Amino acid sequence: MIERQIKEEIELWIEDYFKDKGNYNKIIYDAMKYSLTVGGKRIRPILMLLTYKMYREDYKKIIPLACAVEMIHTYSLIHDDLPCMDNDDLRRGKPTNHKVFGYAMAVLAGDGLLNEAMNIMFKYILDNKEGLEACYTISKSAGVEGMIGGQVVDILGEGKKVTEDELTYMHKKKTGELITAPIVAGALLAKAPNEHVEKLKLYGEKLGVAFQIKDDILDVTGDANVLGKNVHSDDKMHKTTFITTYGLEECKIKCEQLTRECIKILRELNLHSEPLVALTRFLLERNN
Amino acid sequence: MIERQIKEEIELWIEDYFKDKGNYNKIIYDAMKYSLTVGGKRIRPILMLLTYKMYREDYKKIIPLACAVEMIHTYSLIHDDLPCMDNDDLRRGKPTNHKVFGYAMAVLAGDGLLNEAMNIMFKYILDNKEGLEACYTISKSAGVEGMIGGQVVDILGEGKKVTEDELTYMHKKKTGELITAPIVAGALLAKAPNEHVEKLKLYGEKLGVAFQIKDDILDVTGDANVLGKNVHSDDKMHKTTFITTYGLEECKIKCEQLTRECIKILRELNLHSEPLVALTRFLLERNN
Repeated sequence: MIERQIKEEIELWIEDYFKDKGNYNKIIYDAMKYSLTVGGKRIRPILMLLTYKMYREDYKKIIPLACAVEMIHTYSLIHDDLPCMDNDDLRRGKPTNHKVFGYAMAVLAGDGLLNEAMNIMFKYILDNKEGLEACYTISKSAGVEGMIGGQVVDILGEGKKVTEDELTYMHKKKTGELITAPIVAGALLAKAPNEHVEKLKLYGEKLGVAFQIKDDILDVTGDANVLGKNVHSDDKMHKTTFITTYGLEECKIKCEQLTRECIKILRELNLHSEPLVALTRFLLERNN
Repeated sequence: MIERQIKEEIELWIEDYFKDKGNYNKIIYDAMKYSLTVGGKRIRPILMLLTYKMYREDYKKIIPLACAVEMIHTYSLIHDDLPCMDNDDLRRGKPTNHKVFGYAMAVLAGDGLLNEAMNIMFKYILDNKEGLEACYTISKSAGVEGMIGGQVVDILGEGKKVTEDELTYMHKKKTGELITAPIVAGALLAKAPNEHVEKLKLYGEKLGVAFQIKDDILDVTGDANVLGKNVHSDDKMHKTTFITTYGLEECKIKCEQLTRECIKILRELNLHSEPLVALTRFLLERNN
């Protein structure tokens, strides 16, 4: 299976990246690598590489950029888990970063991963100027008008009623942006036609919502051991979620419907999109 | 005076940048802007613009990049001040970010500023491809092999004896990198000859050390009201500093000597370097 091979290549790249890094500052590489390699489905980099691969075979050259996206995602998890945010002890079945490396180092490890992702992108475009738009897309998606903006609204909403508009904004930004961006970046890097980039953007947006609904469902129905993190955390934090807004059954229907829409968009591209279709289905059916 | 004019231009740019920003996420712009506009000498962006201005008059076009450096500097202060790091209540005579916006929002405001700085740089090079190397220089200087690396060693050193090598590493990274980088970036953006870039890099490195020694001196001899932050904080945190290592008098001599070396390098460029010379002197003589 191509996804499995790609996942291995991503993990090898990360392993290699951290080899022999650091001197007096070595501990921060350990902290960064810990959260990057503690597990994870690698959905975002795989989405990027599979999108690219529909157009071009030489996907290996963009693995550094795919891993930069994974670094951004990982930094956001480290900061999300901090005592001042969601205060989670467990992530992917292992102690969270601050539980292992301490509060200060976890803040710095997050900062470090975000910064490192940017370094990797600048370095990439030094040799591949045409990658600039893709990198800018990724950088914007992570920022205050993207993922961070969603996190802000999430935190503001703790313990109080959130409107449907705010909920939509929050999920679109917090989860959706960093799922859509690697897909769009993959298409841009592969020089896909503009109308494909637009369609893939729509695919990413729908996939992001479906992904978040599924996450909310799993937080209610999932098994902590399989999930590798605490369940009922939204309830504990008195958070408004898709479940509290629409109810569990409605959410399941919505998630399936979005998945169908995603697959329809992919099929209409008339490319070899089966690996992306399979991943899209997997994301609906996953139990962690 | 040109520095004063440049400082005003920087502050106008920042003011303008935050105009009408945000919707549901508005609070994070408030938090970012708060720390960006609560004061500050704007040394890093001014260094960048004055360096550039020795070669070219059209320095206004790089003001966004100079402000990106200021954003990176400001994010590092916000995270440094957090309870899990230096736990400072006061910065530039005003309550620190987390004291005003809360712990979680301060973490996010820091993340947001770093990310926004990167966005600004990517956007700049979309229109000015030749700015790429300068942006990469800035991005690297902030990362785990730069400023963050220094901060790591600083934290590891709390309450224990730090070797002279570690101290040198720490200051070179924590303070020096983000002083050297805008100078080098300014030179690169102005297309200064290679040997000038090298000389200005050396100038920046020496200036960074002088700056840090002066900071350590002020922490011992300064007035909290003038400094706008608590004094004797290094002592309180049991930190090894230039003062604990070399003693106050030796530090004053070292600082003056470095300043002279800096000015010598500037003079040898045979350019109109007087504004940079004046700034270098001011940094030695400052009382905050």
